[in-house]
Amino acid sequence: MYRTHTCGELRLADAGKEVTLAGWVQRTRDKGSLVWIDLRDRYGITQLFLDGSSDPKLIEQARTFGREFVIQAKGTVIERESKNPNMPTGEIELKVSEFKLLNSSKTPPFTIEDVSDGGDDLRMKYRYLDIRRNPVRQNLELRHRMAMLVRNYLSNLNFLEIETPMLIKSTPEGARDFVVPSRMNPGEFYALPQSPQQYKQLLMVAGMDRYFQIVRCFRDEDLRADRQPEFTQIDCEMSFVEQEDVLNTFEGLAKHLFKEMKGLAFGQFPRMTWHDAMKYYGSDKPDIRFGMKFVELNDVAKGKGFGLFDNADLVVGICAEGCSEYTRKQLDALTEFVKRPQVGAGGMVYIKYNTDGTFKSSVDKFYTPEDLKVIADKFGAKPGDLMLILCGDAMKTRVQLNALRLEMGNQLGLRKPDEYAPLWVIDFPLLEWDEETQRYYAMHHPFTAPKPEDEALLDDPTKWGDIRANAYDIVMNGVEVGGGSIRIHDRTLQNKMFHTHAGLAFGFDRLCSLFGGADSIRDFIAFPKNNAGRDVMSGSPAPIAQEQLDELQIALNLK
Amino acid sequence: MYRTHTCGELRLADAGKEVTLAGWVQRTRDKGSLVWIDLRDRYGITQLFLDGSSDPKLIEQARTFGREFVIQAKGTVIERESKNPNMPTGEIELKVSEFKLLNSSKTPPFTIEDVSDGGDDLRMKYRYLDIRRNPVRQNLELRHRMAMLVRNYLSNLNFLEIETPMLIKSTPEGARDFVVPSRMNPGEFYALPQSPQQYKQLLMVAGMDRYFQIVRCFRDEDLRADRQPEFTQIDCEMSFVEQEDVLNTFEGLAKHLFKEMKGLAFGQFPRMTWHDAMKYYGSDKPDIRFGMKFVELNDVAKGKGFGLFDNADLVVGICAEGCSEYTRKQLDALTEFVKRPQVGAGGMVYIKYNTDGTFKSSVDKFYTPEDLKVIADKFGAKPGDLMLILCGDAMKTRVQLNALRLEMGNQLGLRKPDEYAPLWVIDFPLLEWDEETQRYYAMHHPFTAPKPEDEALLDDPTKWGDIRANAYDIVMNGVEVGGGSIRIHDRTLQNKMFHTHAGLAFGFDRLCSLFGGADSIRDFIAFPKNNAGRDVMSGSPAPIAQEQLDELQIALNLK
Repeated sequence: MYRTHTCGELRLADAGKEVTLAGWVQRTRDKGSLVWIDLRDRYGITQLFLDGSSDPKLIEQARTFGREFVIQAKGTVIERESKNPNMPTGEIELKVSEFKLLNSSKTPPFTIEDVSDGGDDLRMKYRYLDIRRNPVRQNLELRHRMAMLVRNYLSNLNFLEIETPMLIKSTPEGARDFVVPSRMNPGEFYALPQSPQQYKQLLMVAGMDRYFQIVRCFRDEDLRADRQPEFTQIDCEMSFVEQEDVLNTFEGLAKHLFKEMKGLAFGQFPRMTWHDAMKYYGSDKPDIRFGMKFVELNDVAKGKGFGLFDNADLVVGICAEGCSEYTRKQLDALTEFVKRPQVGAGGMVYIKYNTDGTFKSSVDKFYTPEDLKVIADKFGAKPGDLMLILCGDAMKTRVQLNALRLEMGNQLGLRKPDEYAPLWVIDFPLLEWDEETQRYYAMHHPFTAPKPEDEALLDDPTKWGDIRANAYDIVMNGVEVGGGSIRIHDRTLQNKMFHTHAGLAFGFDRLCSLFGGADSIRDFIAFPKNNAGRDVMSGSPAPIAQEQLDELQIALNLK
Repeated sequence: MYRTHTCGELRLADAGKEVTLAGWVQRTRDKGSLVWIDLRDRYGITQLFLDGSSDPKLIEQARTFGREFVIQAKGTVIERESKNPNMPTGEIELKVSEFKLLNSSKTPPFTIEDVSDGGDDLRMKYRYLDIRRNPVRQNLELRHRMAMLVRNYLSNLNFLEIETPMLIKSTPEGARDFVVPSRMNPGEFYALPQSPQQYKQLLMVAGMDRYFQIVRCFRDEDLRADRQPEFTQIDCEMSFVEQEDVLNTFEGLAKHLFKEMKGLAFGQFPRMTWHDAMKYYGSDKPDIRFGMKFVELNDVAKGKGFGLFDNADLVVGICAEGCSEYTRKQLDALTEFVKRPQVGAGGMVYIKYNTDGTFKSSVDKFYTPEDLKVIADKFGAKPGDLMLILCGDAMKTRVQLNALRLEMGNQLGLRKPDEYAPLWVIDFPLLEWDEETQRYYAMHHPFTAPKPEDEALLDDPTKWGDIRANAYDIVMNGVEVGGGSIRIHDRTLQNKMFHTHAGLAFGFDRLCSLFGGADSIRDFIAFPKNNAGRDVMSGSPAPIAQEQLDELQIALNLK
């Protein structure tokens, strides 16, 4: 090999050894007759040095090495006088006796450092340089460890990893398919899978009992900030199980990951119904790292002549502990926040419960201190707290209040990336009403089974909104990281519908970003695409040759 | 869960327990008041039974269960009187107290048994039923185990599993790309990767040091018997290595697989140059499970007036031990074999070295017994052996003789599926001449490095055929299961070309088929395609809706 050791492994115990290292020049320091080079590879950094006793030719050679040059260095490991406690190799350095230049480097377009001067676009264009930076490299290493942990855990529970096809048949449901014209079957197309959904269910029919796959999925939909046209799922399916079996199994997996990756031990994850999640958090993926649960106020806020409240479907609010000192400016900012189009509330009502026990609110005109005390008691508020209240259509208002709650959580530093609050949200509605098309759609997917006790409601279309599914999401820190359902097993048996298999899929990119303490899944993908689905590093998509089009018997039909 | 145990786990020690099983009815036997049901799941088969002491309603219910019905059975484990030593559960049976029908089944279109009455086409159409059969299931289980072994082994050697993109840029080299029209970028296309080649090299440039991926690759080429449009590679790359490091690392992986999967221990794999492989085996993927190495005969066969030999570029043959009793008919059949268009020889010469020491050949007219003895000595032949000889253009003849050698190996039962003979074939030519286009192409791929000692030959186009590459294939039993090369690191340094990274990819489907003792990779793919690239089970490829075409701004352009 070009090295006897990596740049991260030498220690004091290696002093005196003759070794050879290879790596990238992180930086050089030149003080006349003393030259230091920090040599970097994936495993760490070792300091190389030359001094007055070194061959002058070596010093001359070292001076030709710029940042990111790839060099090989042979020498003796010696103990450093001034040790660096921040580096694993900080007790030693390499007294170089020989250099070899393996490859010179142009000056990179941005610094290869933990905090780089390169903007996002530039670093994406030179992603192969960006990956040299510790933060990116560490994310990919985390991803590797997560994948190995997942595979070994599931394998030990008799899950078989089975590869499903990527060239499949296009199906009209769901998001748009990416399609692939078939040269051998002109006029016909494959599609790329949005998920292995149908295949994993077939594998259960085929008797494989337990399946998983860490698999690429493809969706041709408009990309939002944190979406990729291709993304990775941990896709799973089990036979002869009931909902609790599934939750327990994948909770076990999640706990295993928390333990091995973070050293965190969890008891049983809370299970919250979708109904309660919406009622108390205004979100089907509640962030329960902090409180500020919703408190419904119809019974204590209406009937005081305040028209907005009186006419509203629902009056509901949150209590921000210790925030009664919020200034006018801060409160106005919060009002602006909820009034933004993305949130869409009409306004916000506040009630300060001052430390001296008095109240100050934006509705003092309608509510006496006694009225406000009743409201405060409903909240369980204490002197020093701040209550924030919205009103309007029930579901819409809850969603708006969720936005406000999360904003408060952010402002108060309650949403700490290294705190984890996982939970299951269960009993999703089977169907959701779409205003535009004036019809119901399966909320999860068409194979999801209704809860047996709600099956009778299928006979009454006016009750379809009430049918709950045996569907479940696993949520962490306000992010849905996985979800699944019990499958419809047999529709023809009217009375006894045995739903004997069930599955779940985790968004692996998102799971990695959560464990890595970052917001964006892009940070955990080696070569991600941008919002337009473009890979700016390699220039895809791109036009193809006319010959390719002819061979595929398709033509462009640009509007 | 719908079961307390699997159908494969109950043993004598469980006798007396109340258990619940779930699975598929493999078969039922009905002898009046005695009913047996073999209940099957992935883990095995358990015999259920009812007798005179059972509730008649149960017996009636059991009689409604046909093959492949999915049922749940609750009962007591009892020791069998007549035990079945061929089944792990053969010492017990379940005396059923309750049945539940989970799903009835139509009669499958073929029998769900180890040897089925279903033809290949039918079983592919109903692949989800085919997978229920032991041979197919076991292949997928083998594949799972192989993948886990590979990942854990490489991971322990600091290889990081890194996912590379599947929506990439189309490149004109190599086989044809499958392409994917981009809706968001009309007129532009992604391609599906033929391999992660460029990305894995970029990951080395990015400092990731060691990478692997068990990854889907796509090639839109005409499918031969054992090719799929999408297939799986174990794709690897390493930095700062020389050829020996790569060979040792992946030899270690192969040995690990042999040990864990087969209980076989190997010493160092032989390393054979491409030149010797062609010279002694007529193949760049020699099957060295048996002998019959080529013996070149120019010096002992020419000059005896036999025009065919005298005018040939090369006279070369193999010695089949103990085959001197081959009949006229058998020898004629061998001659027909080599004359088939797929082999393409003009004819075959035989020399029998009879057990009594005499010779009988098809060229007795030109060669005296003494001449034939000289030839026999060159072969190292003994009385009782049969020599088979071809002649003509050197390379063409070697390839033809390879076909004959393998045929003899098959006829003599020397190519045993559970014997493994791995080796490395190294020092491939860098370039190969293509008659049609009258130019050289990279034999492996354009990033392959020439051996340093042959670099000077690059300056002389007449010598290009002699340049050897630092390229290597790993071959097992006449099948190339993997290959790779040292990468061209820097073309501009004339004198010192340091090739510091190298890679290798295994054909994972093929590796599985080898370990599984089967010929076809299809047997190891859950849902394979046929020769026309069609998935007959789900019906892909297929036409897509006009709306989809319009949205993609492409049109069909059928000839």
